[in-house]
Amino acid sequence: MPPVSTARLPRGFTFSAAACGLKKSGLDLGLLCSEVPSSAACLFTTNRAKAAPVFVSQMHLRQSRGRMRGIIVNSGNANCATGTEGIAIAATTALKTAWELGRYHPSQILVCSTGVIGLPVPWRRITEAIPQLVQRRRTSAVAFGQFTRAIMTTDTRPKWASASYTIAGKRVRLLGCAKGAGMIHPQMATMLAFIATDASVSSNVLRRALREAAAKTFNAITVDGDTSTNDTLAVLANGASGVAEIRNVSSEYRKFAAALEEVCHSLALQIVQDGEGAERLVEIVVRGAASERAAERIALTIANSPLVKTAISGADPNWGRILAAAGRAGVPFDPERVGISMGGIRMCNKGSALSFNERAAHQRLLGKQVPITVDLHSGKGMARVWTCDLTEAYVRINASYRS
Amino acid sequence: MPPVSTARLPRGFTFSAAACGLKKSGLDLGLLCSEVPSSAACLFTTNRAKAAPVFVSQMHLRQSRGRMRGIIVNSGNANCATGTEGIAIAATTALKTAWELGRYHPSQILVCSTGVIGLPVPWRRITEAIPQLVQRRRTSAVAFGQFTRAIMTTDTRPKWASASYTIAGKRVRLLGCAKGAGMIHPQMATMLAFIATDASVSSNVLRRALREAAAKTFNAITVDGDTSTNDTLAVLANGASGVAEIRNVSSEYRKFAAALEEVCHSLALQIVQDGEGAERLVEIVVRGAASERAAERIALTIANSPLVKTAISGADPNWGRILAAAGRAGVPFDPERVGISMGGIRMCNKGSALSFNERAAHQRLLGKQVPITVDLHSGKGMARVWTCDLTEAYVRINASYRS
Repeated sequence: MPPVSTARLPRGFTFSAAACGLKKSGLDLGLLCSEVPSSAACLFTTNRAKAAPVFVSQMHLRQSRGRMRGIIVNSGNANCATGTEGIAIAATTALKTAWELGRYHPSQILVCSTGVIGLPVPWRRITEAIPQLVQRRRTSAVAFGQFTRAIMTTDTRPKWASASYTIAGKRVRLLGCAKGAGMIHPQMATMLAFIATDASVSSNVLRRALREAAAKTFNAITVDGDTSTNDTLAVLANGASGVAEIRNVSSEYRKFAAALEEVCHSLALQIVQDGEGAERLVEIVVRGAASERAAERIALTIANSPLVKTAISGADPNWGRILAAAGRAGVPFDPERVGISMGGIRMCNKGSALSFNERAAHQRLLGKQVPITVDLHSGKGMARVWTCDLTEAYVRINASYRS
Repeated sequence: MPPVSTARLPRGFTFSAAACGLKKSGLDLGLLCSEVPSSAACLFTTNRAKAAPVFVSQMHLRQSRGRMRGIIVNSGNANCATGTEGIAIAATTALKTAWELGRYHPSQILVCSTGVIGLPVPWRRITEAIPQLVQRRRTSAVAFGQFTRAIMTTDTRPKWASASYTIAGKRVRLLGCAKGAGMIHPQMATMLAFIATDASVSSNVLRRALREAAAKTFNAITVDGDTSTNDTLAVLANGASGVAEIRNVSSEYRKFAAALEEVCHSLALQIVQDGEGAERLVEIVVRGAASERAAERIALTIANSPLVKTAISGADPNWGRILAAAGRAGVPFDPERVGISMGGIRMCNKGSALSFNERAAHQRLLGKQVPITVDLHSGKGMARVWTCDLTEAYVRINASYRS
């Protein structure tokens, strides 16, 4: 990914990053600020074992009624399973950031962590780095680029996406970044994603737009079915573009929502493409299910099947594994009606094998993107999800993550 | 595993095997017969996409009211997604076997297949091999050993287990064998297992004993969460030991049920230990859950977590991944009460990290068997499941299974 161009930076936001020693090397602390008060909306992990910063951010969002000033993020330590001390550390981090930024109330800061679970947090390293982090914040492509790297863990590259549109002659910009790369699963499963926009949107409407965009993007990707304790997707809308505030579902809302979904879509797919060890992006479309929910369950079961994912890593047109995965999704359907295609080649019709050129299919599956379509011919339910292949590298990365 | 000794063979059973060319090399067709009429009980896959032999065996079991003569099994081709033709092939296989064995009704034969899904079945190779298969059947350790190899697919070794007990001075013997090795998950997920016993048990009581034994053994193991289209667990009890028939839950029943569970337990653990690419057997015990069902869901979510399984492959005491997996099981619990131990070392208490010797823990996890205990301290629900680690070899095996 090339660095973002300055023209894409939304107005009124600053970024900075620091290396405070939570990771063995590299940037591990990032700050994203709105220089003016901002609306905010967030989605958090659904995991029962939530990390301390998730609790603190949820509390701050309630206290500030969705009015935020910034987000401070560390990588290298999840601050999870750290007890009351972990809560105190997350709260102190927000408090110190708010104070240094401008004597704000601590509830105007969101705090996020990503990294290993259950390690003590060397919190002094974080709090001592905050004053410099605050002083050095800039509205620049370089500063944003550093922020995107500071939130990375096993990601092999920074991930960012932007969109813009014009209302009444005024340009509105959205700029987001995200980190993966394992533990990705619907319902906000390990990942952090932050979107800054100079659109003006009321908190309520912003929440709605974020929920809708996430349903079709972040909640439709999976790397390994594991969901994390720390996931957070946050959007700050500070109105610095000077457009009128969006307070309800108007045509302005639809423009904004489309741009927000565009950014979320790009970030979500970047996460899957950079899934741990991934070599291929797999798009799974399930059609003709009894309901949308049924289609989604089947699509996700296929997307998380180790046997399907390893077959794709070997570019093996083994569509029988897709049928078998669909069959165990816990959703009723008639296997005798099922049609399956991989890489655009139809391999199964009415539940039975079609003859196809195995060699050509193998070649097709060697591509960077592999579409899989399953048509159940039993209704109108449809779902689209994205995953990646399961490779030896995934095992290598995760068998030695901490060592 | 050493070959079975002749003394362990149950009376009145014969075995044989043949290489009919379904696999590239080696035995791929097996026959298990009772030389006298036998009670039978079976459990089949819960996958919606059932293979043809599953339909045919289910039908035969109903038609014969649980009175069986034998089981014919092929490996190398699952006869799944093969449409009406697949049903005809499975039915013909049973019919020809029944005829050759003694002009029996075809419903007295169970038919099983395992292998690749969606390939046309070269059925003549099977039917032409049946006469010799029937003629060469023997009550011998060698013949049983050949049968155990004929049902293998990616298994690296044959799996068998035996048990015996004495009633009124008469010896009762049970002898079983099984094949794995990927696609293993509760509710009869890919595996075939056959148990022959000279106990005398009515079909109804036999079904009950099998259900109870499977719940604690075959339905408590998982390799990759993938469940198959072909799984079958069958037990034949022919009464050739000469003991009185067990018709209800008596002390004789309990002796038989204990022996049956012993055989199922051994076979189930052998399947996990020989899981594709597996290097370690992992036993996961979840205690203190709100209910048994809740404990089971959490235990299985941990057992299927790629992040937990890769950590164990790297002997990494990364207990945070266990907490994160428990948290996404969809079962309410209080993370602040959770205790976790790996390899007998306590690593987490009341949801927070305990200090422990990482080096010693790493050494402990390098063992062949890794116990994991999670205590939720919120009730009396308990569950025990077994899985294996996820290794690079799993990916290698499954990325190239068909090539």
